[in-house]
Amino acid sequence: MNEYLGKEEALNPAGPELAARLPDGVLREVAPRHLDEPRGRYQGQAGLLAAPRTVEEVAAIVRACAEARVGIVPRGGGTGLVGGQVMPVGPAPLILSLERMAAIRQVYPAENVLIAEAGASLQSVREAAVGAGRMFPLSLASQGSAQIGGVLATNAGGVNALRWGTARALCLGIEAVLPDGSIMRDLKRLRKDNTGYDLRDLLIGAEGTLGIITAASLRLVPPPVGTGVALMVVPDPQAALSLLALAGAQLGDSVSAFELISGQGLRFLSETMPELRQSFAAPPDWMVLIEIGLPAGLSPDLALERLFSDAAEAGLVLDGLIAQSGQQAAEFWRLREEIPEGNRRVGSISSHDISLPLSEVPGFIAEAGGMLAAIGDMRINCFGHLGDGNLHYNVFPAPGRTRAEYEGLRADIQRLVHQLAVSRGGSFSAEHGIGRLKVADLARWADPARLAAMRAVKAALDPLGIMNPGAVLG
Amino acid sequence: MNEYLGKEEALNPAGPELAARLPDGVLREVAPRHLDEPRGRYQGQAGLLAAPRTVEEVAAIVRACAEARVGIVPRGGGTGLVGGQVMPVGPAPLILSLERMAAIRQVYPAENVLIAEAGASLQSVREAAVGAGRMFPLSLASQGSAQIGGVLATNAGGVNALRWGTARALCLGIEAVLPDGSIMRDLKRLRKDNTGYDLRDLLIGAEGTLGIITAASLRLVPPPVGTGVALMVVPDPQAALSLLALAGAQLGDSVSAFELISGQGLRFLSETMPELRQSFAAPPDWMVLIEIGLPAGLSPDLALERLFSDAAEAGLVLDGLIAQSGQQAAEFWRLREEIPEGNRRVGSISSHDISLPLSEVPGFIAEAGGMLAAIGDMRINCFGHLGDGNLHYNVFPAPGRTRAEYEGLRADIQRLVHQLAVSRGGSFSAEHGIGRLKVADLARWADPARLAAMRAVKAALDPLGIMNPGAVLG
Repeated sequence: MNEYLGKEEALNPAGPELAARLPDGVLREVAPRHLDEPRGRYQGQAGLLAAPRTVEEVAAIVRACAEARVGIVPRGGGTGLVGGQVMPVGPAPLILSLERMAAIRQVYPAENVLIAEAGASLQSVREAAVGAGRMFPLSLASQGSAQIGGVLATNAGGVNALRWGTARALCLGIEAVLPDGSIMRDLKRLRKDNTGYDLRDLLIGAEGTLGIITAASLRLVPPPVGTGVALMVVPDPQAALSLLALAGAQLGDSVSAFELISGQGLRFLSETMPELRQSFAAPPDWMVLIEIGLPAGLSPDLALERLFSDAAEAGLVLDGLIAQSGQQAAEFWRLREEIPEGNRRVGSISSHDISLPLSEVPGFIAEAGGMLAAIGDMRINCFGHLGDGNLHYNVFPAPGRTRAEYEGLRADIQRLVHQLAVSRGGSFSAEHGIGRLKVADLARWADPARLAAMRAVKAALDPLGIMNPGAVLG
Repeated sequence: MNEYLGKEEALNPAGPELAARLPDGVLREVAPRHLDEPRGRYQGQAGLLAAPRTVEEVAAIVRACAEARVGIVPRGGGTGLVGGQVMPVGPAPLILSLERMAAIRQVYPAENVLIAEAGASLQSVREAAVGAGRMFPLSLASQGSAQIGGVLATNAGGVNALRWGTARALCLGIEAVLPDGSIMRDLKRLRKDNTGYDLRDLLIGAEGTLGIITAASLRLVPPPVGTGVALMVVPDPQAALSLLALAGAQLGDSVSAFELISGQGLRFLSETMPELRQSFAAPPDWMVLIEIGLPAGLSPDLALERLFSDAAEAGLVLDGLIAQSGQQAAEFWRLREEIPEGNRRVGSISSHDISLPLSEVPGFIAEAGGMLAAIGDMRINCFGHLGDGNLHYNVFPAPGRTRAEYEGLRADIQRLVHQLAVSRGGSFSAEHGIGRLKVADLARWADPARLAAMRAVKAALDPLGIMNPGAVLG
C-alpha cells in the first residue's frame, strides 16, 4: 500500500554532480537500515547518503541540494511509524543522516537543562540526565534507537506525556538548518523568551519538511523522590476515567503514567509470549497501569493504597496490585511494553494512533466496536496512553483467519476509525505524526483554513520543496 | 519616546467607506480606553472601532479590511506593557475589540478543559475553573482586565509559570481568524495531536500580527490538595538559586512560585505605601517568596519547615516565615504584588523584562549593577520570577533626584541591560513580548536566520501587512 502523494516532479535525482559539491568526507555508503521503516510499508530510495559532523556541514549540504534542486530526507533513528523517514517514489533524494552528530554537548544540572545533538539517542540523553542527578522524562519503547532530532521532528509522546508533556514541552531551544541553508542558532536555556514568532515549535512536529533540527536544549526535571507503580483492574473504560479523575484529585500531576491495557492485549501476550509472567491469573477485560512520582515525605505505597481503597469503595476498581519492589514494577511495565510486540506477532489488519477528548473515550470504544462488528468478524486491541486520551486502536483477524482475508476491508476500517475519532473531536494522529502514511487523512480531515496556512508556511520557508518531499503535505 | 518603526505606507486609513462594508451593529464609539496603554508611552489612533459578537463577524471585518487595505489592531484588555495594543503612527487603523466576545463557552471538568472566548477576562476564566472544582493556573496582577485572547497573543507568563508554564503551555487549541479572513477552527480538547504544523503556537505569542485569536480551549488542572507559602531571607541571589535547587530536589514540581524580592523593592514600599504591613522589621537585602501545592497526605507546613531547616543548615537562608493562615499567605503575596505599584510611585528611569539561564543570574546581577554604577548614581530594584530566570530589572533615580535628570542616559541603560542579558544567553523580553517598544531590539538581537524566517512567515500569512501593523517585526 502506498498512499504517498508525491509532487516532486520538479526535483532532480541525487547523483555524482551533487556529490562533487558536498563537503569532504560527508558521503557514506547507503546501508539497508537507511532505507527501511519499522512497519515495512515503504521502501526508501537513495541517490546519496550524507552524514555530516557539524551544523556547518549540514548547512553546506542543504545549500548544495537547494542549488541542485535535490530532495533531502533527514534521517534519525528511523523508528517512526508513518513513513516520514523514507522517500519511496520520485527522484532519488539525498538522505541526510544525523548519526555522526550524537554528542551530548553540555549538561547544566543547576539549570535543569541539557544540550544534545540531533543524532544522540533518546536513551543516551536520558542516561546523561541521570548522570547529572536529573531526569529527561520523555520515554519511548524505541528509545535505544530513536534519536533526539527525530523525537523532536515528530513531537513524540510516550508514556510520561501525561505529566511532563510531549517532546515539544520538553524543548527550550533548537539549532536548525533552514531550507535555504541558513543556520538558526537558538539553543536558549530559558523558561521564558517572548521574542517573536515561535519557530521552534513550528519546526518541532514538522517532520523535517521545514528544516533540519541539528541540536536542542532540553528541559530536565529533578527525579521524583519516591515512585510507585500499580495495576488496577477496572470494570470498563468509564471507570478507568473516573479512576484517573480520582487520582488527579488526590495526587495532582504526581501521576506520571496512566496506561490502559485490554484483555485482548493480555490474551495476545499469553498466545505469543507464554513465558511472560502475567500479573492476574485470568486476564481481566480492562486494567490500568498507574505510575506516580512523589515529593519527599509521602510514601508511594500509602498513596496508591489510599487511591485503591477509595476507588474500590466507589466501585471503580475490582482488583489491584501495588508493586512491592523495583523488579515487580518493571514486571508490570513489561506487560504494558510488550503489547506492541504481541500485536506484531499476531499481525494486525490495521493500526490506529488516535486521540480523543477524555469524556469521548468510552463512547468511542463502544461505537467503534459496534461498527467494526457490523462489517466483519475481527478482534480489537485497544490500549495506550489513556491519561492523554491517546489510544492505540488496533484491529486483528478473527481467530483462525489471516490478514489476507481482510485486505479488502482495511481501507474501510481505517476510514471508519479515523472518521469516528474526528467526529468526536479527536485526532487521527495523536503521537505518530503524518509522515507519508497519513497525507491523505490530513488533506481530508484538517481544518481547511489551517491546511491552507500550513501550505503557505511551507511555500514560504521551502519554496523549492526540497525538504522531505512528499511528507506531511504531500 | 517612540521607537516604533512604521512601515505601513501602503495602507489606507479606516474611514466611512470601510464602515459601510462592515457587518451591521459592530461599530462602536472609540473611547479613551481603546487608545491608551499602561505605561503611557504611546497614544493610539483610531479611524474606527469594531466590536464583533461572533467569529463570523470577526472574519467579515478582516475580509473588509483586507479589501480596503486598512490596518487592524486587535484589542484585548489593553494591559500589555510593550505597546502592542496601540498604533500611534501611520494611517489610522480599525481597532478590533474582543470585548463583546467574552463568554465561557463550555467547561469540561472531567477533561480538565475550558473553552473561552478571547474577550473573557483572565479572572473570569480562573473563576469558571474554580466553579468546576478545577484551577486555571495562569495568574497575573492584571488578571481582572487582561483578556484571554491577549494573554495568548502575548504568551503571558506570571507567577505560576514555574510549575505550569506560560500561556502557550496551557492552551490546547484555538479558533482564530487569519489575515485573509478565513476562520481556523481548531478548538481541540486533546493532549496529543500530531497533525501537521503547529499553527496554534505560531499564533500564540505573535501579538496579533498573524491573525486574531477569537477563542481557545484551555488546560485546567486539579487544584493542589494542600498549599503553603513562605518568605525566606537569603544572603544573596546565588543562595536563592541553591534554595530553588533544594526545593526542587525535595518537592519537584510541587513548587509553584519562587519569586525574588529585593531590599530596594521593600524600601520603595516603605516609602510609598507606609500602611502596608511588612513581614520583617528591617527589610532584608534579598528574600524569596515560595509557594508550594501538594498532593493529599503531605502537610505543606511540614514540607516548608523541612526545606527551611535543611536550607538553614546549608547556610542558604538567614530567616524565614511560613504563613500560618490564608490571610497571612495573602499578606506575603501582597508584598510581592505591590512592588510594581511601589515602582510606579517612585518612577523608574527604565524598566526591563529579561530572562537568563539560571546559573547566569548571580553574575548578571553583579555585573549589571557595576556597569550602571559606572555611568551614574542610580537605584536598582531587581525582582521577579527567579524560578523561571525571569527578572524585572528596573532602574530608578538616586534619592532626591528626578527621572528627567536621567533622560539622556535612558537609551544607554536599556542597551547595556539588554546587551548584558543577551551576552549571557538571556532574553531582552522574557514575558512581555516585543510589541512596538522592542521592535528595534528584536531586529538587533534576534538570530538573523530566525528573523528572516519570521519575516517570511509574516509575508506568507499576511501579505498585505494589515495585521497589527508595526508590531513585532516593525
